[in-house]
Amino acid sequence: MTPEKPRKVQQSLAALLAPDILDLLESEPGTVAAETEDLHPADLADVVEVLPRSQIPVFLSAIPAQRAAAVLEYLEEDLRTDVLEHMSAEQAAALVAAMTPDDRADTLEDIEESHAENIVEALPAETRRNTEQLLLYPPESAGGLMTTELVSVPASYTVEETLRRVREIARGGRREAMNVVYTIDANGCLAGVLSLRELLAAPEGARMADVAWSEVRKVAVTADREEVAELISEYDLVAIPVVDEKHRVLGVVTFDDVIDVIEEEQTEDVQKLGGMDALDQPYMQMGIGALIKKRAPWLAVLIVLQMFTTSALQRFDSALTALPILVLFIPLVMSGGGNSGSQATSLITRAMALKEVELSDWWRVAMRELPTGLVLGVILGAIAALRIVLGQWGFDQGWVLFGEPLGYDYSDDGLAPWGLVATNVFVSLAAIVTFGSMAGSMLPFVLRRLGFDPASASAPFVATLVDVMGIIIYFSVAIVILGKFM
Amino acid sequence: MTPEKPRKVQQSLAALLAPDILDLLESEPGTVAAETEDLHPADLADVVEVLPRSQIPVFLSAIPAQRAAAVLEYLEEDLRTDVLEHMSAEQAAALVAAMTPDDRADTLEDIEESHAENIVEALPAETRRNTEQLLLYPPESAGGLMTTELVSVPASYTVEETLRRVREIARGGRREAMNVVYTIDANGCLAGVLSLRELLAAPEGARMADVAWSEVRKVAVTADREEVAELISEYDLVAIPVVDEKHRVLGVVTFDDVIDVIEEEQTEDVQKLGGMDALDQPYMQMGIGALIKKRAPWLAVLIVLQMFTTSALQRFDSALTALPILVLFIPLVMSGGGNSGSQATSLITRAMALKEVELSDWWRVAMRELPTGLVLGVILGAIAALRIVLGQWGFDQGWVLFGEPLGYDYSDDGLAPWGLVATNVFVSLAAIVTFGSMAGSMLPFVLRRLGFDPASASAPFVATLVDVMGIIIYFSVAIVILGKFM
Repeated sequence: MTPEKPRKVQQSLAALLAPDILDLLESEPGTVAAETEDLHPADLADVVEVLPRSQIPVFLSAIPAQRAAAVLEYLEEDLRTDVLEHMSAEQAAALVAAMTPDDRADTLEDIEESHAENIVEALPAETRRNTEQLLLYPPESAGGLMTTELVSVPASYTVEETLRRVREIARGGRREAMNVVYTIDANGCLAGVLSLRELLAAPEGARMADVAWSEVRKVAVTADREEVAELISEYDLVAIPVVDEKHRVLGVVTFDDVIDVIEEEQTEDVQKLGGMDALDQPYMQMGIGALIKKRAPWLAVLIVLQMFTTSALQRFDSALTALPILVLFIPLVMSGGGNSGSQATSLITRAMALKEVELSDWWRVAMRELPTGLVLGVILGAIAALRIVLGQWGFDQGWVLFGEPLGYDYSDDGLAPWGLVATNVFVSLAAIVTFGSMAGSMLPFVLRRLGFDPASASAPFVATLVDVMGIIIYFSVAIVILGKFM
Repeated sequence: MTPEKPRKVQQSLAALLAPDILDLLESEPGTVAAETEDLHPADLADVVEVLPRSQIPVFLSAIPAQRAAAVLEYLEEDLRTDVLEHMSAEQAAALVAAMTPDDRADTLEDIEESHAENIVEALPAETRRNTEQLLLYPPESAGGLMTTELVSVPASYTVEETLRRVREIARGGRREAMNVVYTIDANGCLAGVLSLRELLAAPEGARMADVAWSEVRKVAVTADREEVAELISEYDLVAIPVVDEKHRVLGVVTFDDVIDVIEEEQTEDVQKLGGMDALDQPYMQMGIGALIKKRAPWLAVLIVLQMFTTSALQRFDSALTALPILVLFIPLVMSGGGNSGSQATSLITRAMALKEVELSDWWRVAMRELPTGLVLGVILGAIAALRIVLGQWGFDQGWVLFGEPLGYDYSDDGLAPWGLVATNVFVSLAAIVTFGSMAGSMLPFVLRRLGFDPASASAPFVATLVDVMGIIIYFSVAIVILGKFM
């Protein structure tokens, strides 16, 4: 099981290993722990995922609780929940107790409530108190992300005393958040931070108060997880301490949890940009009914908005009756605006997510999108007009391919000159693409100003707005340019 | 400058600090280093970003080279490049030499080539050799991401000897990749890994060969940066060693670089999904010309594809002439399919990026999207049909609002019964939304199978494909249901 292999190969290796483990479980269950001890818990989790459901608890009880807990932490959420829900509260508590506090709280949050309560009841007293406290924090907050295992020492400690303490804790078998040491002042408040490496480099007799960094990045326990992710990412931190309003350390969020947060937030943004509610589970694990519930409401809202195109067309039906040729370019003109709007909204929502663009930048963005949209509109308008010119030329020449006429009479059987029809398409496209770029770039600002997620300015939402406006622009231009033929 | 403040507030604090620093630079340049020594380099970089361009080199030379280098590492890329390009090669080399090796290589890659070569020439011999080697690796590879500063010891060392070595290196002032120690066997190959914490917990007399983990996650120097990011993220690693084909350690990639990679890759995906080329710079820093170059080609391709809607409408012009009412629902029917397609393509490209969905899953995905699309289509079709029923009812009752008729005669002045018109819209929407979901979900598979980035299956691309098909479906259904009235 080499790490260079792509995940797919790893999974098939897991499939290869699983039968051996099943055999061992039956013939010599006592050897399973030793046979698998070289595997990383993440790899062992891959193996567990391909075992028959009934054998998973058997396997987990055949390896040490600490390792079984680590394997559970790497398991797919749904499977982990399912496995624990089908154990007795006591069995589950034994496994859950060996987890890191943050994963323990996350795991319990997924489990059916009354069973989760029974598991918590069955935890050892201190673990139970600690878990109950972590469960109070909302999962989207720093408190919900943090683990309570960390190393802190009084600022009055010497480097030597601190090293001794670190050794003690490390030998106690704790696993997380141990790359830094925090110092605490006489009032119990966070005073400083020192990495293990800096601790090793410091003179043994020095006081921690003198060698630790007093400028400590920290977050409030109520802070949103996105803020935590930003700080870890901006300052390249291995971990960030979480404090209460009196600056007492409650826990620490580590970089690996933040990587997960960044990926989850990004998934939400992509799904919202695609025009739906963010899914709360991986796509393949969602039931089709649940999937429809996330997608249908947005589609329904969009189609109701889109009905304004029907109303707009109803309004222009005399123009359409007089010049049927106008129908041909409705989809073309609408989609040009929708596409440029989709580009603009993707650019701006992403730039907002990365904090490259702030609310106050709306005017600068508008002043960039206006000329950009205009140039793009002129390019698209020219392409569309060229097509009309070429089509008319083909018609005039009577070109035929495989028995079908290659050209088309864009003068609409003599109703209006094709040159003006082409001009109409050119001007409309230039105007609509400009409008699309503006609408697509400004909508995220408007939504954010109103307190919504800017990513809700989805590509389909922008396209729908632009479609309605597109029809109005197209026919208004037509009335000006081709009015005398109507 | 507290970390809890949002970035915007930090930036205005930077703006407040900048004048003080400018004053000091003029009056007492010797005190600048001491006055700013409590600031994190990332914060100092924020301050530098608001200084007048001409004062930046002055400031950087007023603080120790090591700190100036750290500030440069956190500076916006463009500004960093500009500052270094406007220095003599010797001045720049003094700063660049103090950077971590990976940032040094990245920085030099951005600088104009002949100037970069002069800077490399001016580096101290060992640093120069090391830099030249790093510059050979493509920036998108593990080699391009890695730093060469790491701690490795022979596997034959004792824990005590290793601790002594770690202390030596840490006191030497190196900054990165120091949370783990790698062990090297007699052939110079990577043999094991131990975290600093585990090193501290280990008995001092033990051999590293006995206490280090022999199962080490590692990547080949040629591995793609996405693979590096996946391994770090999957196994929660602080750092991953980079090896050559003989398993000798060349460097190490740290978690903070991986967070940047994850964010960059996500930005690329969002931009591609929005229907354009990925930008190579932050949105606000790109020139308008460069922005247009990234956006125009895709829009041009899409409008050319979209022209098939015009061709399709030309083909159905006799149906349109016979039943002008059909025009009214063209945008509605097209956009329903485009929106459901946009949802499906966002879901699938994201699930692929997260490896939740593999190429071989296409059939399973199709079997989920088919019923999902059908249900969504029936819902949308019912909404649209209801609108027609209500509109007709309003017309029949002669409802008027503010002097305008509220209803509309969907029987098209008696040409066709409005019930059949509504049925036509219902059936078409159901079919098109199903088609949109299928096209949107299958296109990423097709693109990936052909070796393209699945994220190129952008929302606008899918919408365009669905638009063309939408018109064909709509008129084909109309010919069946309403053919006798044409």
